[in-house]
Amino acid sequence: MNHFMNSKDDMVTDAIDGVIAASGGALARLDGYPHIRVVVRADWDKSKVALVSGGGSGHEPAHAGFVGAGMLTAAVCGDIFASPSVDAVLAAILAVTGPAGCLLIVKNYTGDRLNFGLAAERARAFGRKVSMVVVDDDIALPNLPQSRGVAGTLFVHKIAGALAEQGAALEDVTKMAERVIAASHSIGMSLDTCTVPGSPKEQRIPAGMAELGLGIHGEAGVEQVPYSGAKQAIEAVADKLAPAMGEGHFVALLNNLGGVSILEMAVLASELLKSRIGRQLDLMVGPAAMMTSLAMHGFSVSVLEADSEQVALLSAPCGIAAWPGCVKLTAQTILPLPDGLSPIKALPSAHSATKAFLTTCCNIMIAAEADLNALDAKSGDGDTGSTLAGASRALLAVMDSLPLADHTQLYRAIGQELSQTMGGSSGVLLAIFFAAAGDAASSGMPMRQALMAGLDRMQEIGGAKPGDRTMIDALLPALTALETGLPDAARAARQGANHTATLTRANAGRASYINAEQLQGHVDPGAEAVARLFENLVN
Amino acid sequence: MNHFMNSKDDMVTDAIDGVIAASGGALARLDGYPHIRVVVRADWDKSKVALVSGGGSGHEPAHAGFVGAGMLTAAVCGDIFASPSVDAVLAAILAVTGPAGCLLIVKNYTGDRLNFGLAAERARAFGRKVSMVVVDDDIALPNLPQSRGVAGTLFVHKIAGALAEQGAALEDVTKMAERVIAASHSIGMSLDTCTVPGSPKEQRIPAGMAELGLGIHGEAGVEQVPYSGAKQAIEAVADKLAPAMGEGHFVALLNNLGGVSILEMAVLASELLKSRIGRQLDLMVGPAAMMTSLAMHGFSVSVLEADSEQVALLSAPCGIAAWPGCVKLTAQTILPLPDGLSPIKALPSAHSATKAFLTTCCNIMIAAEADLNALDAKSGDGDTGSTLAGASRALLAVMDSLPLADHTQLYRAIGQELSQTMGGSSGVLLAIFFAAAGDAASSGMPMRQALMAGLDRMQEIGGAKPGDRTMIDALLPALTALETGLPDAARAARQGANHTATLTRANAGRASYINAEQLQGHVDPGAEAVARLFENLVN
Repeated sequence: MNHFMNSKDDMVTDAIDGVIAASGGALARLDGYPHIRVVVRADWDKSKVALVSGGGSGHEPAHAGFVGAGMLTAAVCGDIFASPSVDAVLAAILAVTGPAGCLLIVKNYTGDRLNFGLAAERARAFGRKVSMVVVDDDIALPNLPQSRGVAGTLFVHKIAGALAEQGAALEDVTKMAERVIAASHSIGMSLDTCTVPGSPKEQRIPAGMAELGLGIHGEAGVEQVPYSGAKQAIEAVADKLAPAMGEGHFVALLNNLGGVSILEMAVLASELLKSRIGRQLDLMVGPAAMMTSLAMHGFSVSVLEADSEQVALLSAPCGIAAWPGCVKLTAQTILPLPDGLSPIKALPSAHSATKAFLTTCCNIMIAAEADLNALDAKSGDGDTGSTLAGASRALLAVMDSLPLADHTQLYRAIGQELSQTMGGSSGVLLAIFFAAAGDAASSGMPMRQALMAGLDRMQEIGGAKPGDRTMIDALLPALTALETGLPDAARAARQGANHTATLTRANAGRASYINAEQLQGHVDPGAEAVARLFENLVN
Repeated sequence: MNHFMNSKDDMVTDAIDGVIAASGGALARLDGYPHIRVVVRADWDKSKVALVSGGGSGHEPAHAGFVGAGMLTAAVCGDIFASPSVDAVLAAILAVTGPAGCLLIVKNYTGDRLNFGLAAERARAFGRKVSMVVVDDDIALPNLPQSRGVAGTLFVHKIAGALAEQGAALEDVTKMAERVIAASHSIGMSLDTCTVPGSPKEQRIPAGMAELGLGIHGEAGVEQVPYSGAKQAIEAVADKLAPAMGEGHFVALLNNLGGVSILEMAVLASELLKSRIGRQLDLMVGPAAMMTSLAMHGFSVSVLEADSEQVALLSAPCGIAAWPGCVKLTAQTILPLPDGLSPIKALPSAHSATKAFLTTCCNIMIAAEADLNALDAKSGDGDTGSTLAGASRALLAVMDSLPLADHTQLYRAIGQELSQTMGGSSGVLLAIFFAAAGDAASSGMPMRQALMAGLDRMQEIGGAKPGDRTMIDALLPALTALETGLPDAARAARQGANHTATLTRANAGRASYINAEQLQGHVDPGAEAVARLFENLVN
């Protein structure tokens, strides 16, 4: 089984149950399972014109997902890609039609037209006022007298739905629906076929090709065309739409046929506006999955030459989650980058003691390069020594341009320097350590406590804790012991570093991908670096 | 190329352009392409706490799709599945942070944590108030200290976003975000891997298996499990969530990982509520694509043990199209089927002339059975004669139960009978013909005009027009000529029927799939039936 379902027979009723549950009480259904699958507005009082649509399932959210105030009153759901029965349509009409009457919105497929048509006749025999419109927006087959109904149907649902919600008469809602249909044109393109649940996948479209002008039931496209990218795909679609569009202005509806990632749909939206028809598009609905073909990796573009009344109805708010709204297309607002992306460079200042201390630290790290690399080769890629030595050399090179006399600024400047010269996670982590220490120092905290604050932040961001086989295992005890002097700190750092050789599980950093046997007996190179630093500062 | 894009390098900026265009002016971006890709609220005035989130792209609509009043202030977009740079995050923070400060909402991945963390430090060095929370809702790996951040992040965006929109202080928004994170648990399942644009598809999951506990970057699931249907898939997920849920009550978030059809998602929603954790679920967000993994054929379930304040914030309306809303789960409302699905059966009435006429018509059709079948074999499946003869025999059998004395009721009754006994499109079309004729007759129209009204309706619903090689080619001229008497009607019907042999293109019905050579020289069997009927009524 390659779909999330229980059985093909139950799939549509299971899905309807899910749609109703997810509606939070906004939707209900008729008691007609398994053959009569009709979703209705739970709050419907028959005081206005009812709108009934439907057809085969597999096009979700159409149609049940568009039931609600301002769109459909009821949706009749057939089997996957198969028209619902006359009885099911009749049940929907009779359930929702009051004195104001009912409009059936039918996509132009023979089965739907006949079954909705006969149901309308039967309902009329019961004295119900029923009118019916047939949507035929597909322009894939321009010379066929019977164009299919595809995603342009959404224009009809929304505009006629908003008009009916305003209390318009059936005649006016019907005429409006007919005007919308006459002004709608759609075409689709796909990179792959759709797979019907329970059926094998049809491999019809070769790699490097796309189908243009396809239906929403897995029907083959009118033509297979070479596919070379989003821009060309949209141009092919625009070339088909342009002749039908003349010089007018349009609302575009960009529909995901179900299996296109939202990332790709956004790329297509961007290309659509840059295409030859882009300047004729004033408003847009989507991109969104509205009239799908299961999870087909394709899209369709519908255009509607809408007058101002239709634009208002299309833009009217409605509380239906599946309706993405209709927005005016405007020029993109591009805001200037904020100041401050180049870090504030503190003014250099001299301080001989600090310079001597920092120089010593750097030289200790440089001297340890080979040892630390060798240690890192046991559990990582053998470059810890080179990374620290490289950063130390860089720090020595800029020593006289550092704000040596201002500890707060100095911490920040060291952090900045390390993040640029060390690279990778460890560079970022040390930059965070020194930046946070600088913040703490700026609020008057003494050095040891400021460094502790930096360590806290580094642990918080980096996620490593004591015992995770990182430099923290030496640095935390060293800074704690520093309260009683540097020799104590050095002893604590060494003890902490040596302890890492007994830790067989690394929870952070690259060593976390190494198994226990490989780690056993080897000191973590970051912790060793800290121990070397403190030990050599004492000596 | 198997994705809708132009190049992998441009994909994210192209998509951001599309998202901004489709926002209708609600979104803007910083002027930092190609490296700084930051989407911001166009209406942001820095008067409240700013919320910044982001991470790698490929998770759309997260995060740019959730920028707007009541959710995020800015989204920072990295390359596909790669963390954005420190500079990009810093640019976002500096662009949107006012005196009220800024909350960074970061999914727990090392790259994101470090880059957002260092950017926060840099922003603090500029005097900005910045706090940061790390979302770690994934329970796939219960013993790892570093759980991943997945779709539960949406809970944080919505709840913290709604609180910030109310004007809460940074400390309170941060605390709320931390409480939401602590109370959120998520797990995902997929039937297939995702395909990264520009990379080949990884075939990792064998047919009949699913991956449970997967990440949102194509990381393999914690385990591969046999897959046997939606119910079992949800039970596997519920079994993982249940230990973390205890006895509490929760909000569920049902997330499409991108490539699941909406039909399937609805089935999963239904199963989730029927699962072992279903009774603990009070509210639901989705099903919808919120935190995707490109177009992965998988889903995730997140649960949040929300207090009443969090429920109110989660349910607060916001005008963000990608946010599906949060609804209370209630029992399904099932409405009784309307009366009238069984057609009104008119009372039988006697009328000897009508009975004789109708009997003659039926016998004519029965006599023509073999000839019409032979004719249909040329262009169809050879059953037109049998279909009409069968319906005629059925009509004869019920003759005495028909309302023969009431023409309106009789038309309807004949239509009803034909739709039941003929089946298929032709049965529905003749039922529509007689039902519409009955409606017309009921308003006092004489017989010929009533039949014409029936024919109009049949053409409207069936879509066939004169010249389309159908029974209409004989019936329309016959009914027109009937004004001057039955012999004229018979002549017109024959002429019309014979004309169909010259029509080489069928636009409606099954013969439209046959090529011209096969049709040439053969009269349409439906038209022939009409001609036979009228000719034999004259003789």
